[in-house]
Amino acid sequence: MEAFSSGADGITVDLVVVNDFDHLKALGHDKVAGKIVLFNEKFDKRKAEAGLAVTSYREGVGYRETGPAAAAGLGAVAALVRSIGSADYRLPHTGDSDPAGIPAGAVSAEDADLIAHLAAEGPVRMHLTLTPQKLPDETSYNVIGDLRGSEHPEQVVIVSGHLDSWDLGTGALDDGAGVVMAMETAHLLQQLHLRPKRTLRVIAWIDEETDGAGSAQYRKDNRSDFDNHVAAIESDAGAAHPLGFVVKMSKAAAVALKPVQTVLSSIGATVFQETSQPPGVTDIAPMSEEGVPLLGILQDMRKYYDYHHTAADTLDKVVPSELRENAAAMAVMAYALADMKEPLPR
Amino acid sequence: MEAFSSGADGITVDLVVVNDFDHLKALGHDKVAGKIVLFNEKFDKRKAEAGLAVTSYREGVGYRETGPAAAAGLGAVAALVRSIGSADYRLPHTGDSDPAGIPAGAVSAEDADLIAHLAAEGPVRMHLTLTPQKLPDETSYNVIGDLRGSEHPEQVVIVSGHLDSWDLGTGALDDGAGVVMAMETAHLLQQLHLRPKRTLRVIAWIDEETDGAGSAQYRKDNRSDFDNHVAAIESDAGAAHPLGFVVKMSKAAAVALKPVQTVLSSIGATVFQETSQPPGVTDIAPMSEEGVPLLGILQDMRKYYDYHHTAADTLDKVVPSELRENAAAMAVMAYALADMKEPLPR
Repeated sequence: MEAFSSGADGITVDLVVVNDFDHLKALGHDKVAGKIVLFNEKFDKRKAEAGLAVTSYREGVGYRETGPAAAAGLGAVAALVRSIGSADYRLPHTGDSDPAGIPAGAVSAEDADLIAHLAAEGPVRMHLTLTPQKLPDETSYNVIGDLRGSEHPEQVVIVSGHLDSWDLGTGALDDGAGVVMAMETAHLLQQLHLRPKRTLRVIAWIDEETDGAGSAQYRKDNRSDFDNHVAAIESDAGAAHPLGFVVKMSKAAAVALKPVQTVLSSIGATVFQETSQPPGVTDIAPMSEEGVPLLGILQDMRKYYDYHHTAADTLDKVVPSELRENAAAMAVMAYALADMKEPLPR
Repeated sequence: MEAFSSGADGITVDLVVVNDFDHLKALGHDKVAGKIVLFNEKFDKRKAEAGLAVTSYREGVGYRETGPAAAAGLGAVAALVRSIGSADYRLPHTGDSDPAGIPAGAVSAEDADLIAHLAAEGPVRMHLTLTPQKLPDETSYNVIGDLRGSEHPEQVVIVSGHLDSWDLGTGALDDGAGVVMAMETAHLLQQLHLRPKRTLRVIAWIDEETDGAGSAQYRKDNRSDFDNHVAAIESDAGAAHPLGFVVKMSKAAAVALKPVQTVLSSIGATVFQETSQPPGVTDIAPMSEEGVPLLGILQDMRKYYDYHHTAADTLDKVVPSELRENAAAMAVMAYALADMKEPLPR
């Protein structure tokens, strides 16, 4: 174990670069204990450019989520994670991480490259000062508004986004945009004097970014009522041009929604991708276990991880015309669900 | 004049946003004195995307260069300048500025937007702590190497880039790449056993970024010898695919170089743009006044101002195959100039 100092000025300690979890395991306690571990898994930009950004993200984000705990398990004194994102603008990409009992932080891709190059030349010591703190939980709330159904007010269709955001930027893409789409859905129906048969419920979820407390509380509060939840829609994948929907529902439900594709063809949002793990529906996903059909808006995410959880997630990244397309897609789908003759089959 | 405090913790003072120099002038001393001035001129990204990045840069950079002095002239206590660049990644773009006697700094485009929006809502006070210092000058050097000509060693062709860089990144694009091209030109001639008639002089200029002291010293040291400087080439516009050359020379000289275009057609670097203000030749430009023909490598600069003078100007931005194309273009042109039968006409 190497010497290190700790205190108000941070720690200065040797560093070891690992490429993946297998590499960490192979190094073992002897080569990890007392050191800073840098997880240097690269975000696959080519997948992201080719339309598989979520796949790239899922391949990498595990290092941020569980890497620090894995490093701590082998005696590391701190962990650094290469940013999980496609931007090459020296931006750290941060986010939630499992409790590890050691300091953990993100470094930009460029700085991870630099550290890895230096480490290939010889021993690297690093002075680390991390200022963020996890403060005690405070009470907060989901924000919920109902547009009461005209015939079956007890039957509910949810449109939603989440209210909290990671703290480096302002959360315009993640997920101010989703909240706007949900609010705009209700607004559009009112502007068009459309009062659907079922209740449209606009939800701005709280605490998507850490523990999902808002989602869990809603599930608890509505446990006896999920038979009446016809469907839930969420958007949490940015604000770029909508391509359609990712859905988790029965075949019969998907067939029943087929006519909506025709309505959405004018903006090209005609994809209807059935998947067991839809992206961008974190808050509504638990309802799936209660049998509620889920829909997420499928967006062009090629640039999403350029900005996601970085200081650059700000309002200027939202293209108004594309945000409007998303609101239109959500509104059309929600109206269909809330006003179709029979409730969506399970 | 508004109250303000100053000291080790910086200053806290009212802020005024100006769109351009005319706006500043119209506000006058009464509305500027005692305040921080934010120059909010926007970099024109559409010009940059359309291939006119240098035009966008030249339209904006005057605010960084002379804005602080203009604000100080009306009694401002500090100046901020919206970043002159095309990236939307919350990156400040910095650079040299005329002495103004007041603190001056750069803010990212996103933060300039935020401040401008807040200022439109009501008075904005800002706490400003700027830590950079201008230290006393130190002696430094141009780095010069000659590949001596076989027939006319007194006749010189310069290939060059500049050695210093702005400090936020590592200067890979500005201008490590240019230095590499110049060195690689000599290296290529040696690898190919080509010994041209005239001397090839590789120069890595010092102090391009502030006062041009390296360029000035060279001019002083070689004043009596410029009749023998056949031509000077510089690359200071990044490392992206070369399109050809920007040149400042007589019509006769341009005609004499026509055959080189044919050689460069295999990599597409065939443009030969005659202009009185070529970009990317700051260090060799003074030689033009001594009658020396100038050539700059014309590169695809659409992304250049995404990185220029930001923390993101790092080696990963250099595409090796494109850097090689640039080195090839410089080497072909330099060899032609150094080995053509008659020296390039003036």
